[in-house]
Amino acid sequence: MSTTSPAPRPAVEEVAARAAAVAPVLAATAPAQLAAGLRAAAAALRADADRLVATAAEETGLAPAPRLRGELERTAVQLEMFSQVALDGSHLDARIDEADPGFRPVPRPDLRRMLVPLGPVLVFAASNFPFAFSVAGGDTAAALAAGCPVVVKAHPGHPRLSAAVTEVVRAALEGAGLPRDALQLAGLPGAEGPDDDGVAAGVALLRDERIAAASFTGSQRAGRHLADVAASRRRPIPFYGELGSTNPVVVTPGALAATTAEAFATAYATSATGSAGQLCTQPGFVLVPAGALDADGGELLAALERAFSAVPEHRLLHPGIAAGYAARREAVLASAGVDVVVAGGVRDSDDGGSGQVWTTPTLVRTTLDALLAAGPELREEAFGPLSVLVEHPGVDAVAAAVPHLYEGELTAGLHVTPEEAQTAPVAALVAALSRVAGRVLFNGWPTGVSVTPAMQHGGPYPATTDAGRTTSVGTAAVTRFLRPVTFQDAPQAVLPPALRDDDPWGVPRTVSRAGESAGWGAVQG
Amino acid sequence: MSTTSPAPRPAVEEVAARAAAVAPVLAATAPAQLAAGLRAAAAALRADADRLVATAAEETGLAPAPRLRGELERTAVQLEMFSQVALDGSHLDARIDEADPGFRPVPRPDLRRMLVPLGPVLVFAASNFPFAFSVAGGDTAAALAAGCPVVVKAHPGHPRLSAAVTEVVRAALEGAGLPRDALQLAGLPGAEGPDDDGVAAGVALLRDERIAAASFTGSQRAGRHLADVAASRRRPIPFYGELGSTNPVVVTPGALAATTAEAFATAYATSATGSAGQLCTQPGFVLVPAGALDADGGELLAALERAFSAVPEHRLLHPGIAAGYAARREAVLASAGVDVVVAGGVRDSDDGGSGQVWTTPTLVRTTLDALLAAGPELREEAFGPLSVLVEHPGVDAVAAAVPHLYEGELTAGLHVTPEEAQTAPVAALVAALSRVAGRVLFNGWPTGVSVTPAMQHGGPYPATTDAGRTTSVGTAAVTRFLRPVTFQDAPQAVLPPALRDDDPWGVPRTVSRAGESAGWGAVQG
Repeated sequence: MSTTSPAPRPAVEEVAARAAAVAPVLAATAPAQLAAGLRAAAAALRADADRLVATAAEETGLAPAPRLRGELERTAVQLEMFSQVALDGSHLDARIDEADPGFRPVPRPDLRRMLVPLGPVLVFAASNFPFAFSVAGGDTAAALAAGCPVVVKAHPGHPRLSAAVTEVVRAALEGAGLPRDALQLAGLPGAEGPDDDGVAAGVALLRDERIAAASFTGSQRAGRHLADVAASRRRPIPFYGELGSTNPVVVTPGALAATTAEAFATAYATSATGSAGQLCTQPGFVLVPAGALDADGGELLAALERAFSAVPEHRLLHPGIAAGYAARREAVLASAGVDVVVAGGVRDSDDGGSGQVWTTPTLVRTTLDALLAAGPELREEAFGPLSVLVEHPGVDAVAAAVPHLYEGELTAGLHVTPEEAQTAPVAALVAALSRVAGRVLFNGWPTGVSVTPAMQHGGPYPATTDAGRTTSVGTAAVTRFLRPVTFQDAPQAVLPPALRDDDPWGVPRTVSRAGESAGWGAVQG
Repeated sequence: MSTTSPAPRPAVEEVAARAAAVAPVLAATAPAQLAAGLRAAAAALRADADRLVATAAEETGLAPAPRLRGELERTAVQLEMFSQVALDGSHLDARIDEADPGFRPVPRPDLRRMLVPLGPVLVFAASNFPFAFSVAGGDTAAALAAGCPVVVKAHPGHPRLSAAVTEVVRAALEGAGLPRDALQLAGLPGAEGPDDDGVAAGVALLRDERIAAASFTGSQRAGRHLADVAASRRRPIPFYGELGSTNPVVVTPGALAATTAEAFATAYATSATGSAGQLCTQPGFVLVPAGALDADGGELLAALERAFSAVPEHRLLHPGIAAGYAARREAVLASAGVDVVVAGGVRDSDDGGSGQVWTTPTLVRTTLDALLAAGPELREEAFGPLSVLVEHPGVDAVAAAVPHLYEGELTAGLHVTPEEAQTAPVAALVAALSRVAGRVLFNGWPTGVSVTPAMQHGGPYPATTDAGRTTSVGTAAVTRFLRPVTFQDAPQAVLPPALRDDDPWGVPRTVSRAGESAGWGAVQG
């Protein structure tokens, strides 16, 4: 980092000033109005789906249908879900302790606590979900539901789509009675000159005193750098970075016996190569029983070869991802103890100048011992359609290896029979997996992420920068952008509506009644 | 910071290894057993109260009664409160989404989410609450209730008490069937040689890969340094630092008219000078209406002079606090626009060599304009028995000044009448105060901190290093040491008890039933 002062950035300054100006307005907005804005944004995205999907497909190389149409619908449903969160009010965690003169060791005042918005949120858009993790994605919806204005740092992989979605959503918010500046876009490539990639604007915003929290989905290198910027500010701010994951899936002998080679191979290949493997939860390592690949005359191996070879060539999202994937693929192929099952490949487009890069899937095999002996060249995420088959000698050995192989993963999977699930070695393996992952899934593949109250999409570092304490998918994400405030002995007139005796917003509250507080103590402090 | 490798520290290595060894044991311990351990610890502290209070009084200079006896009782009650938290199970935030084949846009699997322990927690003990914010204090109780082992970095201000409490609690935990190493003490001064102050051991533990989270209560300088260490680790960890606060209290003309000068002055002096002002919530600034000090022939001023002058001399906790307070007091007295009301003082003990420092309270006065024009020399916390009276021209002016004067405070107070509370200027002031403080209190003084579900003890930076998202007092503190894990389509046999269909622990769960999920969506991701 340079030690000289950064150049002034009028665009950044204006965006931050606007976000700060609307923050108290949004914080004082009733949940019903926030909810109306979120629903209007969902409807507006659906109404403009044809144009938006076409733009997204052009810019990203992802399939218009079902992939991008489905993603737009998910994004709209997500906005509607957060409108329900805002209306429901549980996310405010409202608590009322009635005044209690008989409280021990000393009397208790009237205490009322709720969560309030942190303030302007900076969302770094991701490239791989141009709708669901970009301008109007999960963190934007969660922040708006929390009552925080959002500034999106555009991803350079889909600038036209970013601008289009921003305008659609801003108009919808305004139509629902919210300030347009509840959502702003910054850091579009070229905004500050022909060589501007937008990165400097994003970093300048992250350093801006008016930004109160930030979220990011992307690479470990960029994410850690931004996390360090957030932590080294004069006033550090919460930074929710999702930095990738290898999503190991462990398969037991019983589980393999209970399926067919064809069904297993098809489901695995679908999860590992969909969207050219450019998904946070792509299964990068699949641990199968030793000997399984050679059993029955190599039936499973043959089925895997067929399934991975049958996947059509797919464009990669942008040149940065293409370069990163090509380098990681080479490193994996050159690793000790790694044998090729399906070579696949990476090639530049022959259309003369588009800069597009196309891939076919790569599948390799190794052993648990070789993986344990390997370094990052084999173990780190390869963001693209590459997966590593790992032969393991048994569940015990995998459980013992997990703490050495994994520190923080978004997901860990286990294919297991009901009978095996009753055994101590499987229990030990599940415990080990749950210590390093945010989601442990059974007899399935990690790339389906439900957007629901019980979803956790986050894990210990390096899967995320916040030790996996929050999620970026599902209703629980709203807590990222809130902090508690307690009002003590406050007159009704100055209380926020959610804490008033008459509860005009109908917010659920946890009430500690006077006289019912045996064992809850207080003292001068 | 040095770039050379730190010296190996066998004691630190052993403590960290033990904490890591018991972490999975505690994580698998039933809540009833954790609760029994916490209750046993409370009972053991009470049983040994005479000895412990005598040691604490000798080491800290705080009064044995009511102060230290009350604090020990608070600490015991706090341990009991967290035993109830563990038993109740709400803190696990258990959520079950039933599988739903009709879910849109795609079917939903069975998802079960709960909070699990982060792992070994490092607690930096504070000097000013040798029981309640030290070895067996709030963060220790919260971490144990969460199922995390605790390593306490001893505060050098009360080393003998720290060792004594550690032994009492370890024995009690063992008696209740928990591992002794659920609580360990590290960093006692002299442990690594005659010149060792324990600081290096604390920093080494904070850098240790096995420590999963840390908490701290103390100075802004030390706290920010430790927060930076935590953020710059290879794997950053959550760091909950409480760094101090000036706790402004605003008084309206009506509120002043509704009380007597004597009552106001006595209550203010009690809050500002109790425990020699060495409390996180000591009211450092009290904003009174302009002219109030000179009205009625200076009645209020005279009452304040009497109240602050009547406070007996009190020892300061330790030489570091004494030196810091003396320097801050000199800076305040030398600030432009500051006049002395009660000079007070700081003097070294004349007992020849104890190193003790004694103080009498200092009260000064200034104006809101002078405070706005001042720098940190006047505005920063003076940790000791010093308070600043600030004459303000009205509630409007105070509301406008708040964003310029305050960034992050543990508390902000307002003395106001019920009639004034109905007015727009007071509403604007309350909104401004709630944007910068974790607790806004009315017609009282900030130094009573109730230990209850609705308490918030934390505020935006620099009051705390985590943007005020968590509390160090009250039941909500347990969330500091937990992270969510979701189990997807898991066989009953491998689920944690809190997520099983039969709910053997009786944990409250939020269930989303199949078919009741209109508007909650899911898609491949």
